[in-house]
Amino acid sequence: MKIDGTPFRSIWVDETDGWVVRIIDQTKLPWAVDLVRLTTMDEVAHAIKAMLVRGAPLIGASAAYGVALAMRADPSDANLSHAITVLGATRPTAINLRWALARMEAALRPLGGNARAAAAYAQAAQICDEDVATNAAIGKHGMQLIAERARSNKPVNILTHCNAGWLATVDWGTALAPIYMAHDAGIDVHVWVEETRPRNQGASLTAWELGKHGVPHTVIADNAGGHLMQRGDVDLVIVGTDRVTRTGDVANKIGTYLKALAARDNGVPFWVALPSSTIDWTISDGLSDIPIEERAQSEVTTITGRALDGAIATIRIVPKDSPAANPAFDVTPARLVSGLITERGLCRAHADALHEIFKETA
Amino acid sequence: MKIDGTPFRSIWVDETDGWVVRIIDQTKLPWAVDLVRLTTMDEVAHAIKAMLVRGAPLIGASAAYGVALAMRADPSDANLSHAITVLGATRPTAINLRWALARMEAALRPLGGNARAAAAYAQAAQICDEDVATNAAIGKHGMQLIAERARSNKPVNILTHCNAGWLATVDWGTALAPIYMAHDAGIDVHVWVEETRPRNQGASLTAWELGKHGVPHTVIADNAGGHLMQRGDVDLVIVGTDRVTRTGDVANKIGTYLKALAARDNGVPFWVALPSSTIDWTISDGLSDIPIEERAQSEVTTITGRALDGAIATIRIVPKDSPAANPAFDVTPARLVSGLITERGLCRAHADALHEIFKETA
Repeated sequence: MKIDGTPFRSIWVDETDGWVVRIIDQTKLPWAVDLVRLTTMDEVAHAIKAMLVRGAPLIGASAAYGVALAMRADPSDANLSHAITVLGATRPTAINLRWALARMEAALRPLGGNARAAAAYAQAAQICDEDVATNAAIGKHGMQLIAERARSNKPVNILTHCNAGWLATVDWGTALAPIYMAHDAGIDVHVWVEETRPRNQGASLTAWELGKHGVPHTVIADNAGGHLMQRGDVDLVIVGTDRVTRTGDVANKIGTYLKALAARDNGVPFWVALPSSTIDWTISDGLSDIPIEERAQSEVTTITGRALDGAIATIRIVPKDSPAANPAFDVTPARLVSGLITERGLCRAHADALHEIFKETA
Repeated sequence: MKIDGTPFRSIWVDETDGWVVRIIDQTKLPWAVDLVRLTTMDEVAHAIKAMLVRGAPLIGASAAYGVALAMRADPSDANLSHAITVLGATRPTAINLRWALARMEAALRPLGGNARAAAAYAQAAQICDEDVATNAAIGKHGMQLIAERARSNKPVNILTHCNAGWLATVDWGTALAPIYMAHDAGIDVHVWVEETRPRNQGASLTAWELGKHGVPHTVIADNAGGHLMQRGDVDLVIVGTDRVTRTGDVANKIGTYLKALAARDNGVPFWVALPSSTIDWTISDGLSDIPIEERAQSEVTTITGRALDGAIATIRIVPKDSPAANPAFDVTPARLVSGLITERGLCRAHADALHEIFKETA
């Protein structure tokens, strides 16, 4: 998508040298667009762990390029195994990470050492291109849900949590793809952007990318989402996900489950947008089988933003002797999900429905 | 309750001069304990509006002292009416404000001008003393709920939202009174303190007052409360309220409704602690009849805390061109409330049950 008129992806290979991986440091947004150069596998692992890149699909794409950088430095079997291990340990919840690494390993392991680097770059590029095509398909299918709610007197109000926009993927986004497409098609949309504490990816990333694309939106505290549904100001909820079970349970950013409960209580459709690489076909019970990442207390006790003088500042917002807990994801049971928006179309959050459109997984 | 060993109330008349009203400026907590002097009715109105004092019971007590300061300056009928009008317009949601002002007016209107100031101070002091006694009774009744969940191997985990502690009342608090009493009685309790965006009264006030009293607690993002219930880490939810309908619908800080939904979904008891002055006996439908205050966008787009150098700083956390919305309260329907903790005992959130223990309202 575009930043001030210039098209961007969230990850790409530098055109000048042909091998350095470039990303936008998402910890600096919305205050600075800092295009970081990643030159080693360890730098990629750090970028994922420290969330310079985040979002399940982008984590997968980044890990693929991490393997490519590793193969450029040392294409040995041992180093391939080492890269897969290190990159695989960066984040526990997103399944796309494991998916992308498995795909890289399957493509590279059979090859001789001196063919691996080129093949790894080609495979990573293909993962990225496929992600863009997948998200475009998600956008097209999800746009139906918005189009059928369009009316002349007021916008379609869509609530989203966290960031599942183009910054969370290679381009388009998952939850935001239908919104971008509807907006571009002239449908009057308005997005309630939940700030998404503690890391505020909604306020800092979703608001920023919607703003840069010109999509009308309003930032709200996460606490406000239920009240807006009670008063009839939400037509549709669309969120992304980090892992979906074969039965349709959805792991997503902490707080998603609360909005699914409110949506059900108020008869608001609650949809989850995802590429099929986010589905973990090996598990059936999201609550017991999906590992939930516990992140640092400091993400709750401190917050970063821009001071009145323009400088970026980090402040403490919790008394110094009070501890904090920081589970990063929660699981929304399939029973609360109206449906899934996949690259193959809309489908119920249910094992049978998923197998119906992904028959090859049976 | 105590601050570093010294007993405090949240509002009192200065002992030296006998008429100046003193409060703790709660906008400065937890970083500074600033004991502000209020000398005019307008200063009291500003203190309520700008939330130097907040919490439904304390808003009522503060307004009572605002009337006293007004009567000291000019005890005329016109000025009494003026004070009631100005103070009554400071905050729309808390019913205690209207209750306290009606009580002051009923006590003062019949009196001659030169008796009004002394009577007003006496009436305000009585409102405060009654609040303390009421909250102690709430604490005693609510403590049963905690005591019956006590066990030897782990603490009773109680989740609370916003601040309904002694800082929200004159002393003891409403939701926190049972917790203080249980803790003081030697019951092992642990409190999940929701930060309560956007103003963070949980992180800055509840965590601070629990810490000062030595009650074990952990601060969490508001988003985390549902997940903690899903994994069995919450035994009981207790919150305060700004207005309860005669039928048991509960208006409280934005986000409360979401926790009530999660509590029901996970079989966790959801209790609301309140003095009967918080009950609005004139209304039956919380969703349609309770006005919800919309506060400034800046409460969402900026946040204040302590920088690494110790200075208090305000930073912006939303892109500069993104608007925000800030509804301050939501309504939890009675069907989601396990029960009410009042000064007369525990009771179902239902008109019949409320009339049973408050027969004089029939």
